[in-house]
Amino acid sequence: MTGTPLFERMALIGIGLIGSSLALAARQRGLVKEISISTRSPETLARAEELGLGDRYELDAATAVEGADLVILCVPVGANAAVAKWIAPALKKGAILTDVGSTKGSVVDQVSPHVPEGVHFVPGHPIAGTEQSGPDAGFPTLFEDRWCILTPPEGTDPDAIEKLSTFWRGCGSDVDRMDPNHHDLVLAIVSHLPHLIAYNIVGTADDLETVTKSEVIKYSASGFRDFTRLAASDPTMWRDVCLNNKDAILEMLARFSEDLSALQRAIRWGDGQTLFDLFTRTRGIRRSIIEAGQETDAPDFGRHGKGNPDGPAE
Amino acid sequence: MTGTPLFERMALIGIGLIGSSLALAARQRGLVKEISISTRSPETLARAEELGLGDRYELDAATAVEGADLVILCVPVGANAAVAKWIAPALKKGAILTDVGSTKGSVVDQVSPHVPEGVHFVPGHPIAGTEQSGPDAGFPTLFEDRWCILTPPEGTDPDAIEKLSTFWRGCGSDVDRMDPNHHDLVLAIVSHLPHLIAYNIVGTADDLETVTKSEVIKYSASGFRDFTRLAASDPTMWRDVCLNNKDAILEMLARFSEDLSALQRAIRWGDGQTLFDLFTRTRGIRRSIIEAGQETDAPDFGRHGKGNPDGPAE
Repeated sequence: MTGTPLFERMALIGIGLIGSSLALAARQRGLVKEISISTRSPETLARAEELGLGDRYELDAATAVEGADLVILCVPVGANAAVAKWIAPALKKGAILTDVGSTKGSVVDQVSPHVPEGVHFVPGHPIAGTEQSGPDAGFPTLFEDRWCILTPPEGTDPDAIEKLSTFWRGCGSDVDRMDPNHHDLVLAIVSHLPHLIAYNIVGTADDLETVTKSEVIKYSASGFRDFTRLAASDPTMWRDVCLNNKDAILEMLARFSEDLSALQRAIRWGDGQTLFDLFTRTRGIRRSIIEAGQETDAPDFGRHGKGNPDGPAE
Repeated sequence: MTGTPLFERMALIGIGLIGSSLALAARQRGLVKEISISTRSPETLARAEELGLGDRYELDAATAVEGADLVILCVPVGANAAVAKWIAPALKKGAILTDVGSTKGSVVDQVSPHVPEGVHFVPGHPIAGTEQSGPDAGFPTLFEDRWCILTPPEGTDPDAIEKLSTFWRGCGSDVDRMDPNHHDLVLAIVSHLPHLIAYNIVGTADDLETVTKSEVIKYSASGFRDFTRLAASDPTMWRDVCLNNKDAILEMLARFSEDLSALQRAIRWGDGQTLFDLFTRTRGIRRSIIEAGQETDAPDFGRHGKGNPDGPAE
């Protein structure tokens, strides 16, 4: 990135994993001239300042967005409406307002009514994250080689969409556009259901009387530990996702449960062929994900290779 | 490892991920003097020879175990009985016979009847693996800092148990002893259910009409890709596990489904508190697994840190 920054002042409302990663990425790549940060917790705001994530720190979100030409809501999706209402009167004419929420239909419904005339609302969702949260969790390469999905309502200014796309590309992402409801259906299967399943199995294991928690922990390398990563994600964020993408999630859960019942039946009746066929066709998908650059091809996510000269070639 | 090897000749029947890793680990650490390898596929046997995994290569498993004082069955659990019957007449008096199968009750039932007088049968299960299979997948550090569970039947010679334990410790593992049926219950929750759930969700995603396969692949970094690792595991091995640990797996599946129904109900009725409570209590388990040395503490399994100077500290 050379020359003039894309935006004069970026305001980040919320400074968790995504907000802090955006601050670091935008700064490092010279995408914005000034960064204004707001979050409702004084402790978190103080920590953001200690980490030097921005230039201005405001407990009042409305003050934070004053004069900003890019405003990004980085709060759990359930908080978007209240924040939008709060900052609306202070938004600068011509500013781009966007968000990073994991559901888009609800965001469009809840935020749009508050957006003032002359402000360009372009909802967005970067498909990136880790299981960690808070301002310390951020890092500037989080968005590299990941997708960012924009779901602008019909009639949105094409220049605003293009400028926001340039911003995300500047952060290292590829940009896609999608209808908000289709986004919610896609994310229900690729993200929301996986998280729910992970939370659920970790809960099931935690409740057992016949197997101790110490046994679950000791022998977790045989598969279980993979699920604990997603199940360590931010509870507030995920509660809000469930409450705001109910229909699509219930639809995907129903399909998953149906398939699981069929699998259960195959096990009960010793139907080895059905099991073998399912276990064979699922292999190809991982290969495709690796080829698409969305996954490491190192065995075991590269866990064994880490700092280990005897690990497999990567 | 210094001085005399523990065993004069180790015979490996089956040379997939576990067999080849054992060959490399035992060689590197001087645990055995000679390695004899057998597998039923001529191509796989030729590949093992190309890789230099052993000293002798035999298509006939009975020939491979001649003169061996340690015989390790490294085949899918469904094949154990046939292999045991085949090699039984050729087993050397005083030899230790063990296996690496993921189920133990069925192995004890199916292998024990074939074990000749004077041969020490000590069933075992190293809790280690990756999603890859075949002789090229092996690496010598696979068992380091992992557990190996032995399930010797009552009356087994304590010296044989101790000698096999020393072998596994030599490979870098900690050794536990357990009743075979309890082993099968523990593994049903920490390993078998996670694999089934992973296979199932990948199958569900693959079947959707409303979301394309290309979308599932592109946006998989939002959670789904984690499951594809387990769902890329060896289909024959996992078919056999399902067929040989039916009762424990069905019990765990039933509990998981019950819990999932409760979760589904909480989503349908917008019960945010129930969701928040579950999503909060599951966080602690990952922390315990990391503290027990069974998982990396790098965010996202360390995927972001790989070769990336801007990645988070690890």
